[in-house]
Amino acid sequence: MTKTGHFVTLEGIDGAGKTVQSKLLAERLKAEGIPLVVTREPGGGSGGGPIRDLLTGELTGTYSNETEILLFTADRRNHLDSLIGPALAEGKLVICDRFVDSTRIYQGLGRPQLRRLIDRLHQAVIGLEPDMTFIVDLPVEVAVKRIRTRSGSDRRFEQFGKEISALRDGFRRLADEFPNRCRIVDGTMPPEHLAEELYRMTGSLIS
Amino acid sequence: MTKTGHFVTLEGIDGAGKTVQSKLLAERLKAEGIPLVVTREPGGGSGGGPIRDLLTGELTGTYSNETEILLFTADRRNHLDSLIGPALAEGKLVICDRFVDSTRIYQGLGRPQLRRLIDRLHQAVIGLEPDMTFIVDLPVEVAVKRIRTRSGSDRRFEQFGKEISALRDGFRRLADEFPNRCRIVDGTMPPEHLAEELYRMTGSLIS
Repeated sequence: MTKTGHFVTLEGIDGAGKTVQSKLLAERLKAEGIPLVVTREPGGGSGGGPIRDLLTGELTGTYSNETEILLFTADRRNHLDSLIGPALAEGKLVICDRFVDSTRIYQGLGRPQLRRLIDRLHQAVIGLEPDMTFIVDLPVEVAVKRIRTRSGSDRRFEQFGKEISALRDGFRRLADEFPNRCRIVDGTMPPEHLAEELYRMTGSLIS
Repeated sequence: MTKTGHFVTLEGIDGAGKTVQSKLLAERLKAEGIPLVVTREPGGGSGGGPIRDLLTGELTGTYSNETEILLFTADRRNHLDSLIGPALAEGKLVICDRFVDSTRIYQGLGRPQLRRLIDRLHQAVIGLEPDMTFIVDLPVEVAVKRIRTRSGSDRRFEQFGKEISALRDGFRRLADEFPNRCRIVDGTMPPEHLAEELYRMTGSLIS
């Protein structure tokens, strides 16, 4: 008999606070003795690092959208095989910072043909949707300010902000597309307050 | 108006002489002024090297069959985007050492579910079959002898030979599956004689 755990993902634009919230959620649940793993994409699981390097390192911009989608899906399948699948089979809670929704938005937004490809590949080789997805939402200005502080980026706000604004809207619309599992949460809240909210919602899922 | 070139692939087990034959064929046709490119998989085209490294380097054996199939398909799509597609559009002859048939055999042989996945992915993101495919065929003992000379491999012949024998049969059966484009050629012939045969057959394709 295979036990089944629960699969929770955090999504949203850069600077939303997904990584911090993943950690806070994991710490709190771990303290209560809940068996869990915290992970992220791209690059999660054994052997994921070298695939992540293709997608986020010096090679960024080298590959076509289709090649990128195949590489993200390869990374996800490896993540599923080496970490997510076994953890769920052991009945653990899996908390994952980005999953297929990020590919749907970053590679597929506004490009229906690519979005269809992403979904076809996902169905063919992954076949797993999260039980609950937190879409950490916040105004673009706040996200950009955080990213700038983090990376010292000097990209001009006008262009940068417009792109991110479309991505934010895309993530928000995912909640309409997948209402059963998606919850939009307020990324401008103080981190400990937001963490409390995610803890409460995750608790209702796993209890 | 888009000109269209021709696409020739060489397939077969390791040690068959595909690489040597690709070069001899290219040299001969180049000398006649035929515009062409010679390439190979995995890793052909711009940006292909780092994907090849995932598939043939130290990481060999790290990834599941499905992940490998996705990575090979990503490599192929990148090859198509960055080299094969543009060359064919310019009316060139493309000579390629291994293509999707190698994935069909190495990843799909004897595993119908994986073979179906390979074909589905190929149809969804590549959509190109060669105009002509030379399956360079030879007895397993000859191939193994050549590989041993090349790599100093000390794998036991019994096990090694059995695996390669199945692969050889798999490549031969491709000629039944795709009779219009596949030609089985004799890899035990002296290289210059085999080159003459490939030259003749390629000539009939492009003339």
